[in-house]
Amino acid sequence: MRLLDNLNSIKQLHEMDLQELRELAKEIRELILSTVAENGGHLAPSLGTVELTLALYSVFNFDVDKLVWDVGHQAYTHKILTGRRDQFHTLRTLNGLTGFPKRSESKYDSFGVGHASTSISAALGLLLASEIEHRDNRVVAVIGDGAMTGGMAYEGLNHAGQLKKNLIVILNDNEMSIDKNVGALSEYLSQIRLAPQYRKAKRDFEDLVKKIPIPGLGEKIIKASNSIRHGLKSAIVQGAIFEVLGFTYLGPVDGHDIKAMQEIFTRVKDEMTEPVIIHVRTTKGKGYKPAEESPEKFHGVGKFDKFTGEIFKKTSPKTYTEIFSKAIVDCAKVDKSIVAITAAMPSGTGLKLFSEMFPDRFFDAGIAEEHAITLAAGMSAGGLHPVVALYSTFAQRAYDQILHDVCLQNLPLTLCLDRAGLVGEDGATHHGVFDLSYLRHIPNMNILAPKDENELRQMIFTAINKRLPTAIRYPRGAGLGVKVIDNPQPLIWAKSEILSKISGGEADATIFAVGTMVEAAKKAAELLKNSRIYVNVVNSRFIKPLDVDTIYELALNSKLIVTCEENILAGGFGSAVAEFLIDSNIIKPMLRFGIDDKFIEHGTRSQLLEICGLTAENIADGIYNRLQKMSR
Amino acid sequence: MRLLDNLNSIKQLHEMDLQELRELAKEIRELILSTVAENGGHLAPSLGTVELTLALYSVFNFDVDKLVWDVGHQAYTHKILTGRRDQFHTLRTLNGLTGFPKRSESKYDSFGVGHASTSISAALGLLLASEIEHRDNRVVAVIGDGAMTGGMAYEGLNHAGQLKKNLIVILNDNEMSIDKNVGALSEYLSQIRLAPQYRKAKRDFEDLVKKIPIPGLGEKIIKASNSIRHGLKSAIVQGAIFEVLGFTYLGPVDGHDIKAMQEIFTRVKDEMTEPVIIHVRTTKGKGYKPAEESPEKFHGVGKFDKFTGEIFKKTSPKTYTEIFSKAIVDCAKVDKSIVAITAAMPSGTGLKLFSEMFPDRFFDAGIAEEHAITLAAGMSAGGLHPVVALYSTFAQRAYDQILHDVCLQNLPLTLCLDRAGLVGEDGATHHGVFDLSYLRHIPNMNILAPKDENELRQMIFTAINKRLPTAIRYPRGAGLGVKVIDNPQPLIWAKSEILSKISGGEADATIFAVGTMVEAAKKAAELLKNSRIYVNVVNSRFIKPLDVDTIYELALNSKLIVTCEENILAGGFGSAVAEFLIDSNIIKPMLRFGIDDKFIEHGTRSQLLEICGLTAENIADGIYNRLQKMSR
Repeated sequence: MRLLDNLNSIKQLHEMDLQELRELAKEIRELILSTVAENGGHLAPSLGTVELTLALYSVFNFDVDKLVWDVGHQAYTHKILTGRRDQFHTLRTLNGLTGFPKRSESKYDSFGVGHASTSISAALGLLLASEIEHRDNRVVAVIGDGAMTGGMAYEGLNHAGQLKKNLIVILNDNEMSIDKNVGALSEYLSQIRLAPQYRKAKRDFEDLVKKIPIPGLGEKIIKASNSIRHGLKSAIVQGAIFEVLGFTYLGPVDGHDIKAMQEIFTRVKDEMTEPVIIHVRTTKGKGYKPAEESPEKFHGVGKFDKFTGEIFKKTSPKTYTEIFSKAIVDCAKVDKSIVAITAAMPSGTGLKLFSEMFPDRFFDAGIAEEHAITLAAGMSAGGLHPVVALYSTFAQRAYDQILHDVCLQNLPLTLCLDRAGLVGEDGATHHGVFDLSYLRHIPNMNILAPKDENELRQMIFTAINKRLPTAIRYPRGAGLGVKVIDNPQPLIWAKSEILSKISGGEADATIFAVGTMVEAAKKAAELLKNSRIYVNVVNSRFIKPLDVDTIYELALNSKLIVTCEENILAGGFGSAVAEFLIDSNIIKPMLRFGIDDKFIEHGTRSQLLEICGLTAENIADGIYNRLQKMSR
Repeated sequence: MRLLDNLNSIKQLHEMDLQELRELAKEIRELILSTVAENGGHLAPSLGTVELTLALYSVFNFDVDKLVWDVGHQAYTHKILTGRRDQFHTLRTLNGLTGFPKRSESKYDSFGVGHASTSISAALGLLLASEIEHRDNRVVAVIGDGAMTGGMAYEGLNHAGQLKKNLIVILNDNEMSIDKNVGALSEYLSQIRLAPQYRKAKRDFEDLVKKIPIPGLGEKIIKASNSIRHGLKSAIVQGAIFEVLGFTYLGPVDGHDIKAMQEIFTRVKDEMTEPVIIHVRTTKGKGYKPAEESPEKFHGVGKFDKFTGEIFKKTSPKTYTEIFSKAIVDCAKVDKSIVAITAAMPSGTGLKLFSEMFPDRFFDAGIAEEHAITLAAGMSAGGLHPVVALYSTFAQRAYDQILHDVCLQNLPLTLCLDRAGLVGEDGATHHGVFDLSYLRHIPNMNILAPKDENELRQMIFTAINKRLPTAIRYPRGAGLGVKVIDNPQPLIWAKSEILSKISGGEADATIFAVGTMVEAAKKAAELLKNSRIYVNVVNSRFIKPLDVDTIYELALNSKLIVTCEENILAGGFGSAVAEFLIDSNIIKPMLRFGIDDKFIEHGTRSQLLEICGLTAENIADGIYNRLQKMSR
């Protein structure tokens, strides 16, 4: 019988001895490993925090204390300990456990997360709320060194340090963010390990002073020396940046040594009333060799063989990311003004190849999308053509920079938004279903979406050469398997592609579809033929500027106008078409397919598309029913 | 004859001696003072940087070097020196000079600004572009201590420090941001002035060591002591946080001592190849007593008497800000769960009164809107009801936090967006004309806009008590002068106010107007009566959730549906109404008034409303013409 099987309350963790906790760590590690091997998930981050989580739960009382995980991809142990052991096998599956902490899932998930660098702000908010409402509890934020490169984390530290409240921040330092960490701060964090040298220097100094034969002078000298160093010592050697921001810095401590962490956590819990940062060093993927050796590969991973560590590769077509990866390199070979920028995800976004081929023209801004965009705007102002590759959901962070720094100045750059639309198992925090809406209303912005991987290739070429602020959004995962023509075929700007058109007379409907929905629209049109309903199908490559000529012409010759998009309906592509028709005084029935006004949970992409009604069948049904109603 | 009158090229500044530069400073100060007294503008920040700007121009060659101002409200001297002396009297007026650096205005404005904390990222981008294109020039960013509290600045510093490029950052430290600066960082910056004590301690130590009678031992002790302090000294005492981030820190230097600055700038220019931060201490409002004494009052100021410093108060009705200020205090007296958060603008947003009455429930997050929102989300998760007061344009920074931290978790808070719509003289970077679009598509968000100051009062009460994520957006400046009823009259949620309705039969049109446009719509309706055109007028208090029942009913009984909003048309209120009508299969002609798909420049609010066609006359004309067309 596993210890885990008897664990029914977090209180039991206070009573376990060290050996039991270590045994529990093993069991949890095994549960995480088997589950992620089956379901996919964030293996390496969660394996890295097993002991840290156990140490926290064995010292703090999270029935009253609050624990905020940054990003939350390292919180599997936390889930397992807090009443979710038996559902853990449902991780990341439809209606199962989410991959991230979520308030509606458990009272122990005190703040929902997914995007980076929010934990310190949220934890400070929770702490202030407790104080104002006279509750006496501790609040602990756990943040990785990667998330620490985000500006929000600094804003939160700065404010917490000034308020002098008893916020406890655990710096989970695994010397990498999702790829490897960047920035001077992370270099500094590595330097902290020089501390023993400092201690030796101090010992040498004191030994010398002891040799002074005049009574009292030695003491005076030491005192004077201490007064010089007053405030200095703890600074540089023990976390200067945090001390400067008003935090007491403790550590580093081995994040896999439960006992060492218990000691430091207990001390903090019992003795400290000021803002504290505890530097904990962990190893990503700890305890599972393949993940320890390739933590990037096992950061967020699909199904794999847990015995060999072999990741099951689909033999499916190349992913959009792979197409982007090669396309941008091809473009950069010809166009020397192209530079590429990522926000800590060279692998995820496909820029790794570019970084290897053009190291001098590649920049990793850290988990800092705001800086990434304005850096790109600066480069553009300096005459370069930056390509910024971000996930759609993370680009939300840079909304103001896209508006104020890029578009207001009409600075050319190409924003490649990967993982646009429904991303599947990562769920609500990660779906890229807002980009059409948050970009479309920004003047000077241009937005494209490819129907397949070959069109992505051509769009990248077209967008770069157009020299305008342009976003290209494309989905997670594999393309359709079409042939990708590397010899660029520039697309006509603001021109859509009419895929099928009823010859002569009025069509029953015209479907204007963008991106992934083009394929569904084509199939819907086929399905409708069975009911003798004949529709035009348009690949609306350009969400902005709209191809108003084509819309105008086809709208006039269709009974019904239909739009399809993998984006929130409010303010998106269908909304743009509606605005155009209304402003042009074209009074026609219209039907919009897209995502309703709610957040979408996790599941496979195809499950979620089904739930959102974004399938060929549902589109065909919707058109059929509307036409029926109209003919009554 | 003024020196200024002979200044036709920035090259002349290299040849001026110190006395001439000082004389020029006087003349520039006088020009700034007289112009701002007439036109309004950012007086205190720009008076604070006269000598700094002259020192920079006398050392660097900005025909090739690049200068990036953060925020840009301190750049008047820069404008005057770079060919804009003779137009300076047009500052902030329609078609005149903008109040901020702007690329299209001058080649010396190397990067447009307005929002805070962007300069380091943009400057780094410019520097990298120069390097990649083999241009040999320096790039200088000037950033205030206030803007330094923004996370983007930290992201930029962290990246620049890591890349080890020769970026020159001037920290313009005036010990305040727009109000007074906040945060541990700013406390730290004040501590830097303790340096003399440090030097004294060191002298004392060395004096003691000299008393050691053993030859050689004193030297050894000093050496050992130095080795302890190796890296420490320059850190805490001379800009630890910057050194940690990879910058060499120089200063502080008196920002009104041209000679001292010239020396340090020359040294940096000639000798340094690494990232450098130069700490310059300036006095806001320098040289103009009223502004030195009340820099907050003279930060961004309207017309005033330059001799007495008396600011011309309009006798007009109370501003929306003043109404908010009192309303939130009234609510907080009754509801102890209310806390208030500002991002460095207690005065601008009207929270100063709250901060005085409820200091324990008031939080200034610094110029850090991202942190401000997530802090509020944390407080909300902790059971409080946060009211976050931001300018609409600055809230753009927190788009992702509003979406991911507030709305995704459906955490109740009230977001009070002041300066929504066209703000007037501050121009393109500051207009709050995107909020309806960037908020409306976020699930769980609610958006209200009051037609007058009394409605604002009732909306604040209503929104707080509804306990949902809710934004209230209201314009800059004075209300309509209506009586404000302090005894709260809760509004019915999601219900609009029908202001006038044609009795019996079909109306020629129904105008659905939000916020400021309600008054214009009422007047337009009056004007149309002269042409025997009869329209319903609806105050659409709720942009989200839409009052679909009222829209449905009135739309069915109107020939034409009209929407009016002081917001970008794409994705805004009219777009929401269009989406609803289309989705409800109501096929009616519709006319939308709002801001077209372009950025709006500066001018008075009424000039800009006129330009955007948001006047009663234009609305009436538009409706008249459309109805004429329809009847043909």
